[in-house]
Amino acid sequence: MHINGRKRVVIENVKPEIDSGRFPIKRVVGEKVVVTADIFADGHDAVWANVLYKYQNDNTWREIPMSFLENDRWQGEFIVEEMGIYTYTIEGGVDHFKTWQNDLKKKYDVNRDIKIELLIGIQHIQDILQRVPGDAKKKLLEYIDFLKKEENRRESVTIALGEELGNLIKKYPDKQSATNYGRKLTIVADRKKALFSAWYERFPRSCSPEAGKHGTFKDCENILPDIARMGFDVFYLPPIHPIGKTNRKGKNNSTVVNPDDVGSPWAIGSDEGGHKAVLPQIGTREDFERLLNRAKEYAIEIAIDLAFQCSPDHPYVKEHPEWFHWRPDGSVQYAENPPKKYEDVLPLNFETEQWQQLWDELKSVVVFWVERGVRIFRVDNPHTKPFFFWEWLIKEVKSKYPDVLFLSEAFTRPKVMYYLAKLGFTQSYTYFTWRNTKREFIEYITELVQTDVREYFRPNFWPNTPDILPEHLQYGGRPAFMIRLILAATLSSNYGIFGPAFELCVSEAIHGKEEYLNSEKYEVKHWEWDRPGNLKDFIAQVNRVRKENPALQTTGNVQFYEIDNEYLIAYGKATEDFSNILLVVVNLDPYHNQSGWVRVPISKFGIDADQPYLVHDLLSDGKYIWHGENNYVELKPHDMPAHIFKVRKKLKRETDFDYFL
Amino acid sequence: MHINGRKRVVIENVKPEIDSGRFPIKRVVGEKVVVTADIFADGHDAVWANVLYKYQNDNTWREIPMSFLENDRWQGEFIVEEMGIYTYTIEGGVDHFKTWQNDLKKKYDVNRDIKIELLIGIQHIQDILQRVPGDAKKKLLEYIDFLKKEENRRESVTIALGEELGNLIKKYPDKQSATNYGRKLTIVADRKKALFSAWYERFPRSCSPEAGKHGTFKDCENILPDIARMGFDVFYLPPIHPIGKTNRKGKNNSTVVNPDDVGSPWAIGSDEGGHKAVLPQIGTREDFERLLNRAKEYAIEIAIDLAFQCSPDHPYVKEHPEWFHWRPDGSVQYAENPPKKYEDVLPLNFETEQWQQLWDELKSVVVFWVERGVRIFRVDNPHTKPFFFWEWLIKEVKSKYPDVLFLSEAFTRPKVMYYLAKLGFTQSYTYFTWRNTKREFIEYITELVQTDVREYFRPNFWPNTPDILPEHLQYGGRPAFMIRLILAATLSSNYGIFGPAFELCVSEAIHGKEEYLNSEKYEVKHWEWDRPGNLKDFIAQVNRVRKENPALQTTGNVQFYEIDNEYLIAYGKATEDFSNILLVVVNLDPYHNQSGWVRVPISKFGIDADQPYLVHDLLSDGKYIWHGENNYVELKPHDMPAHIFKVRKKLKRETDFDYFL
Repeated sequence: MHINGRKRVVIENVKPEIDSGRFPIKRVVGEKVVVTADIFADGHDAVWANVLYKYQNDNTWREIPMSFLENDRWQGEFIVEEMGIYTYTIEGGVDHFKTWQNDLKKKYDVNRDIKIELLIGIQHIQDILQRVPGDAKKKLLEYIDFLKKEENRRESVTIALGEELGNLIKKYPDKQSATNYGRKLTIVADRKKALFSAWYERFPRSCSPEAGKHGTFKDCENILPDIARMGFDVFYLPPIHPIGKTNRKGKNNSTVVNPDDVGSPWAIGSDEGGHKAVLPQIGTREDFERLLNRAKEYAIEIAIDLAFQCSPDHPYVKEHPEWFHWRPDGSVQYAENPPKKYEDVLPLNFETEQWQQLWDELKSVVVFWVERGVRIFRVDNPHTKPFFFWEWLIKEVKSKYPDVLFLSEAFTRPKVMYYLAKLGFTQSYTYFTWRNTKREFIEYITELVQTDVREYFRPNFWPNTPDILPEHLQYGGRPAFMIRLILAATLSSNYGIFGPAFELCVSEAIHGKEEYLNSEKYEVKHWEWDRPGNLKDFIAQVNRVRKENPALQTTGNVQFYEIDNEYLIAYGKATEDFSNILLVVVNLDPYHNQSGWVRVPISKFGIDADQPYLVHDLLSDGKYIWHGENNYVELKPHDMPAHIFKVRKKLKRETDFDYFL
Repeated sequence: MHINGRKRVVIENVKPEIDSGRFPIKRVVGEKVVVTADIFADGHDAVWANVLYKYQNDNTWREIPMSFLENDRWQGEFIVEEMGIYTYTIEGGVDHFKTWQNDLKKKYDVNRDIKIELLIGIQHIQDILQRVPGDAKKKLLEYIDFLKKEENRRESVTIALGEELGNLIKKYPDKQSATNYGRKLTIVADRKKALFSAWYERFPRSCSPEAGKHGTFKDCENILPDIARMGFDVFYLPPIHPIGKTNRKGKNNSTVVNPDDVGSPWAIGSDEGGHKAVLPQIGTREDFERLLNRAKEYAIEIAIDLAFQCSPDHPYVKEHPEWFHWRPDGSVQYAENPPKKYEDVLPLNFETEQWQQLWDELKSVVVFWVERGVRIFRVDNPHTKPFFFWEWLIKEVKSKYPDVLFLSEAFTRPKVMYYLAKLGFTQSYTYFTWRNTKREFIEYITELVQTDVREYFRPNFWPNTPDILPEHLQYGGRPAFMIRLILAATLSSNYGIFGPAFELCVSEAIHGKEEYLNSEKYEVKHWEWDRPGNLKDFIAQVNRVRKENPALQTTGNVQFYEIDNEYLIAYGKATEDFSNILLVVVNLDPYHNQSGWVRVPISKFGIDADQPYLVHDLLSDGKYIWHGENNYVELKPHDMPAHIFKVRKKLKRETDFDYFL
C-alpha cells in the first residue's frame, strides 16, 4: 500500500484553476490572486490550510494561512510582485489542538469535569514540541507547567482557549499527515500594460502631411504628439515589411493592379526582404528604432504586426519551398477560404516535415524585433496556425523577455478564441465589435468577467479595425462613434481604435458589407486629421478619465445595473476599497434622446438610503445630488451620449459640494 | 523539443469527467455513457474524433466515431455491458480528405476549374493507401483510376463527394498526427440494483409475532412474504451482532438501564463476539444464511449494516488496544459530540500507527459477510471515518466482488456527502428527508440530476429512518406518509422506508425533536402489522407501478413542470424513446384539497396541440382525456394525495380509449 492512512483532509474544487492546471492564469504585477478551495476532514475535527506559492525557481514555498468562508470553503490570497511565472498550491491537515479547544469549550460551557481534558491538552502541546524551534518550545513548556499546576478551573480554560496559545501553535501545524493538493498551478505575471492599455492603430504609409506622398517612420514621429494628446499609450503599426509584387492587389482588393498601387502590407516579402526587413518606402530599420525611442518620450510603445504568411515573392519561397503547399501542377497554393481568394498571400505549411526549422525561423523573427526594442506584438489570425506552435513560441519568448505582450487577432469561434488565450496570448480581440443591444452586451461581458474566462482571457475592445466597419458605425453618425468609444474604453481596460478613420467618423462601406470602401489596406491615404467634427478632443477626455480613475484600469470589476429603458445601459466599476466608484450610463440609440431610472447599488457603495450623494459627470462636468437607489437620467446623443459619473459620498450633512469625498 | 508539431487538434472540456478524472463515473449494466467534448483544429479544416473505451484489462480500445453537435462540441456514446471497470478517452485529428471535399464542393458550386483539385484529391487518397488493408486498398485504387480517367466533371465530383468514398476513408483516419486526450477516465459499472431498488428496513428483534418475545432470523423469514407483497427487493437489517453490556443504554437512550434492556444494536461486540459474530438471541450464522437463501426465493436481498465502532466489551478492545483512544487517566474514550455522549460506543482510532492492521481487519469483516452471501451493505456514519479508507476498502472489495453495493448513511455537510459518493459508495442517503416545499424539492433535485453530481451520486430517498421521524410525519397524519412515500418512490429510483413504523403511520416523537419516542433502537417492539389504516396495500401499489414502468427505474430523467399552486408539485419521467411517459402530481398539503393547472410538455412527448391524449392514473385507475398543454388537476389528500399518470398518445382520431397507445 502506497497510502498514508493517516491523511484525513481533502482539498478539492480549487479556484482559480484552468483545465486541471493545464494552463496558467494571468495576473499583472501588483494584482491579487484569491485562492479558494473546498477543504474538509472526516468527522467533526477542525482543519488548517495554507496557500503555498513561489516565484519562478524559488526553492521554498511562501505560506499564506487560509481562512474559513462557509460550507467547507476556504480562502487565502497573495499579490504577485514580479513579472514571470508563479506557482501555487494548497496544503491542509487536521488541527488537533483546535479540535481539542472546541471540545474543551463545549464541555466547560455545560459544566463538565475538565480535569482530564486539560491533561489531554497538555499531551497535544507535548506532541507539538517535537516540531517547534527553541524560543517557541520554551514558551510552550511554560504553558504546560501552567496548565499542570493551575488549580483555578476558569483560568486554565481561559489560557487554554486563549488566542496567544492558539496563534503560537497555529504556526507549527502537523505536516506529516497533511494533505498536499498535488497539482501545481501556475500564474503568468505580466507588466501592468497587459491589463490597462489604449491602442491607436494607423498605417505608417498614410501618415504623411502631404497629399499623395507615401508616409514614413519620420512622419510617424511627427504625429506622436497628437497620439499622446489623445491619450493613447500603444501605437500599433500594420506590417512594416516589404510588400510582394506578384499578384499584388489593387485598390479595393482588386485583382487588377496599377503600377502605382502599393498593395496590402499583409502580403509580406519581396526581393527587398522578408519578416525581418522594412519596406524601403517607409524607411530603414534605423528609422524604426528612432521612432521607438521617440515614442518612449511620449510614454507610447510601438506595437508591430506578426503576420506569419508570405507573398509569392518572399525569400522563404525559394529558400524553403518545403514550408509551402505545392499543387500537382507545380504551382504554389495561395490562401483561400472558398469562394474567397487571397492570391497575394501564401499560407505557411505547418504540417511540413520540416516544422521544427519553420518554428525556429518564426521564433527568430520575433526575437529579431524584440532585440530592436519591440515589446508588443499584435498577432494576425493566430487561429489559422497550429495552437501548440503559439504555446511554444510565447513561452520561449517570454521566458527570456517576460515583458513582451501578444495580442491575439482571432475573430473566430468562441472556443478557439478562448483556447488561444489559454495558450498564452496576453490580450485578445473580442466580439465587442458586433455587440449592439443592452442584452447582448450584458450577456457577453458577463461571460467574460464572471466565469473562469476572466482568469486567462484579457479582452481588448475595438470599435473598428482596418477589416471591420460595423453597421452601427455606417449608419449611426458621429454619436455612434462616441457611443462605441465610451463603451470600449469604460467596459474594458484594454481597448483600441483604428485611426484616423475612427476619429474622423469615416462611415463609407462597401455596399452590403462591413468593410471600408477604399480601404487603407490597399492604398495610401491622406487624412485631414483636424477637420471639423473630429473626435480627438473627446477621445482625449475619455482617456484622461481612464487614467485618473483606477476603477477603469481593470475589466473584471464591471457590474451592470438595472435601468428601465432598453436603449440605456448602466454599469459601474469600483476599486476594491470603493475609494473610486464610477457609474456609466450610455445611450445606445445614436438618433434619439432617451431617459430612464437607474438603480444604484448604494448599500454596496456604503451609502445610506437617506444619505444624499454627489454624482459628478466627468464628461460634461455636470454635478447632481442624488438620493436613494433610483435616480433619473436623460441622454441626448447629439450632445453627449453618455454619463461617466464619479460617485462621491457625502462626508457630513452639509449642502456644500466640497464636503463630498 | 518533445512536441509533435504536426498535431493540430485540441480536445478539451470532456464530459463526463469528475475532478479531472480523479474519480470514476457510475453506470449500471445496460446504461449509456454519452461522452461530449470540445474538439477543434486551427483554421477551417474538418476534424474527426472517436471515443475510445475498453473494459477492465482489455488490450484493445473499442472506437466509437463521434458526431458534431454545434459550437465545436462533439458527441459519442456507448453502453456498458459488464460489471466492473471501464476506461474511456477521446482521440481526434484533422480530416484532410473531408477538408478537401468541402473545398471541392465550394469551388464546384461557384464554377471554378477543378481539374487540379481532383488531382489533389487523388494525392489524398494515395496518402491514405499506406494505412489501409488489402480489400479497402483495392477499392481505393479503383477510385483513383476513376477520378484520373473521368472526363465528366459532374460525375467526378459526385463520386468524390459521395458518401461511399467518404465512409470508406473515414475508417482509416491519420492517427500519426492525431491528438489523444491523454486522460483515461473511468467508469464503475454496477449491477442494475444499484440504480433501481426499494428498501425495507426492520429490526429483526421486533419481528416476533408474539408480544414480549425477542425476534429471530426465523421470524424474519416469516415476514418475507409480506415484504415481497409490498414490493420491496432489499430487506435491510440493523446490526445483527452481539451487543455490549458495559454502559448499555436503556429505553429512550437512558443511561439508567434495566436488566432486561436489550441495548442499541450499534453498540457492537461483547464476550459473545464482534463484527463477525451474531447476537445469539437473534440466531446463528446458519440461521442468517438460511434467511438469505429464503429471501432469494422472494427476489429479496438481505442488506446488513457496517458500523465500524465498538462497545467497550468488543474483543478488539483487549486484543488491539492501540485501535482505540486512551485518556490520560487510563480510561478508554467513548464517542461524543459535545454535549452529546454515546457511552456505549467507542470510536476506532484511525490515526493509530497500526492503521494498516486496522484497515485489513475491517476489510476482513466485509469479506467475511460477502463470503456468506451478503451483497449489500448499508454503511453507518461513513463520514466519521477517514475518506481514503473507504476508497481503498470499496475498491478492494469490488475488485473481487463487483456486485457488492454500499449505501452511504452520511447525513452531514453536502460536500462531504458528495465526496463519499465520489470515493466509491454505490448509493447515498440524501436531504430528501428534510425537504418540504415545492421550491426546496425542485432546487435540491435539480442539483442532484442536472449537475455533475448525477454522474457519481446515486440518491436513495428515505422518508424516515430509526433516527429520524421528520416533523411533517409527526403532524401530517396518514396523508403525509402517503405523500412522502410517493415522492420518494417516484422522484428517486432508489428509496427505502423504516418499517413497520412507516406503514403503520407511527408519529409519536420525543417532544421537540425529530426522533421516535420509545425508539426501537433501545427496545424490542411488537407490531400489529395489519392494523386498520396500515399502508401495506398502498405501498404495494406504488412499488408495482415502479416495476411496471421503466421510466421510474432511473433518477436522472426527472423533469419538473409548471403548476400554478404552491402546494402542488408536478414532474415527469420518461424513457429515452418516450415509449413510457409518467406524469406525477403530488399535493404537498396533507390537510386540504388543492387544485391547479399543470403545464404538460406535449411537444416533447410528441403530442400535437390539437391532439387529445389519455392520462391514466395508475393509483386510482381513473382515466382522463386531456387536450393541449394546460390541464386541470384536483387532489384530496384524505382520498389520494397524488396522481401518477401514464400518458398515452392517441393512435387514431377515435373516441374509444382502446385506441390509445
